[in-house]
Amino acid sequence: MGDPAGIGPEITVKALQDAKVYEKCRPMVVGDAKVMQAAIDFLGLNMSVRAIKSVAEAQFEQGCIDVYDLDNVDMSQLQYGQVSAMCGRAAFEAVRCNIELAMKHEIDATVTAPINKEAIHMAGFNFSGHTEIYAHFTNTNNYAMLLADDSLRVIHVSTHVSLREACDRAKKERVLNVIGLLHNACRQFGIEKPHLAVAGLNPHSGENGLFGQEEIEEIIPAIQEAKAQGYDVEGPVPPDTIFAKAVQGKFDGCVAMYHDQGHIPFKLVGFKWNNEKQKMDSVKGVNITLGLPIIRTSVDHGTAFEIAGQGIACEDAMLISIDYALKMAQNKQ
Amino acid sequence: MGDPAGIGPEITVKALQDAKVYEKCRPMVVGDAKVMQAAIDFLGLNMSVRAIKSVAEAQFEQGCIDVYDLDNVDMSQLQYGQVSAMCGRAAFEAVRCNIELAMKHEIDATVTAPINKEAIHMAGFNFSGHTEIYAHFTNTNNYAMLLADDSLRVIHVSTHVSLREACDRAKKERVLNVIGLLHNACRQFGIEKPHLAVAGLNPHSGENGLFGQEEIEEIIPAIQEAKAQGYDVEGPVPPDTIFAKAVQGKFDGCVAMYHDQGHIPFKLVGFKWNNEKQKMDSVKGVNITLGLPIIRTSVDHGTAFEIAGQGIACEDAMLISIDYALKMAQNKQ
Repeated sequence: MGDPAGIGPEITVKALQDAKVYEKCRPMVVGDAKVMQAAIDFLGLNMSVRAIKSVAEAQFEQGCIDVYDLDNVDMSQLQYGQVSAMCGRAAFEAVRCNIELAMKHEIDATVTAPINKEAIHMAGFNFSGHTEIYAHFTNTNNYAMLLADDSLRVIHVSTHVSLREACDRAKKERVLNVIGLLHNACRQFGIEKPHLAVAGLNPHSGENGLFGQEEIEEIIPAIQEAKAQGYDVEGPVPPDTIFAKAVQGKFDGCVAMYHDQGHIPFKLVGFKWNNEKQKMDSVKGVNITLGLPIIRTSVDHGTAFEIAGQGIACEDAMLISIDYALKMAQNKQ
Repeated sequence: MGDPAGIGPEITVKALQDAKVYEKCRPMVVGDAKVMQAAIDFLGLNMSVRAIKSVAEAQFEQGCIDVYDLDNVDMSQLQYGQVSAMCGRAAFEAVRCNIELAMKHEIDATVTAPINKEAIHMAGFNFSGHTEIYAHFTNTNNYAMLLADDSLRVIHVSTHVSLREACDRAKKERVLNVIGLLHNACRQFGIEKPHLAVAGLNPHSGENGLFGQEEIEEIIPAIQEAKAQGYDVEGPVPPDTIFAKAVQGKFDGCVAMYHDQGHIPFKLVGFKWNNEKQKMDSVKGVNITLGLPIIRTSVDHGTAFEIAGQGIACEDAMLISIDYALKMAQNKQ
């Protein structure tokens, strides 16, 4: 469901309005049934909600959304677009429940809608985002963020750290590890023999050590080791051309050395800013946490509080996230 | 002319084949007349070269390229695609002559074709590229690299330094300075009231100091000072959304904090990789050095030694570079 005050409920409803989703899988929402009903109402849709207390009760009928009901939102207190402890708690509990159901194999894959970090903190939970919650409750130390859409798949050596710390984190062992995670993910997406590329950290990949030693000391040794282990991987490719080539199909997946190296090209390709309306028309993109014992995909955008509750948020990213979760679940089995 | 062994001569000839160029300006090539004639020949074009020794001799007739002839290439030694001291020297002397002519006001603007750093070094000149040569021979300390195409204009706080050093260079005074350079450049491009944006250095612009202090200590103070000085500028905008918004027209120009922050989106938009032919079909993009007393624009790609001499290199970037030089010269006058 995501944060009840954000666009999570409405993009979830919009996505589940799509009959194709029900042909492909058996979707269930974890959250508050009243919040989901309210989203249906303000969207003006002819749909309903079935509040359930166990997965076994779900009917998976298009038009009637099965909500695993945590019943933890007081609708008289809910204000769209507002950060609150109540919504932070509701969002957090939905995520935790989702993880538990997946760990118990009651569900095959999880998809998350946006939560608000501040709200989570206000509710007393000290996590900086979904990824950390998933890592904690699945006891995972070794994970990485993959962004994926039709043309680009980018895994990140580091994410939410300063750029200086990102330089420190570009280490051989970590690079080697994410190459393996990326390879496995591409295989789960149905790419039989993934051809991967690793970006440099410095401009021009350091130009033979002229500006920066990380390529020589860490990245090139990691690539050599990965090749020795049988991975089809090349690099370091200069950061300013790797993505221009990847979007045209030269690489099945790319390793980015830091958050923005991967996020800048990814959002440039997937996001469509509407300058007239001053909002994003489309925010295509899936955020996948790799290395977990369960499947987790997510929309790659935030709660968009500024437009929440208006019904204008775009569900593209939610639909793609469902598709990716499905693909991974199928290829896992 | 650029490095004689690279694609500089051929993209210059291809660009000057365009009659529209001669309608807009009076173009002259600085380099070796024999090299330019050879490019015409392997391109199979019905054009000729007029070797001249002073600007006054130029005729500016489409079909006959005026070459300010430095006569410094031994054609029997020229090998396309090969790094050599001879070609490094020829390319360097062409650039230096170009700068001198502009400093003496004999020409209104300069456009450069790619040179090879290694060749320049082999020829005994210790410069890392065009920009440094221009800075040296025009006695300029305060300059910055702007990349421009139809949709994106990005100035860089730092360029060819390691990512760690780039973090050190994101200083208030420098950021303020490049905001001024970008504003003036946009005005020269004909944008009356440029609306500018400054990117953060860290992911999410540091998220209020959570990962990285540079926004709080350097970038925000620079933006505030720029506003106080009357510039229309906003930021810090998170690095992973600023360019998605800029390409749709939200900003007239962007300030990037480091080389790849600006180069990744720019090349993703302007470069078209052909995966079948394994080469770039298009490399649209102009590299402009701001802060110089003379006008200098350049193609934003390299010598492309791997395809030099075959006549298949794309002249798009050269044509746009000429257009930008022209626009800047007109608005300077």
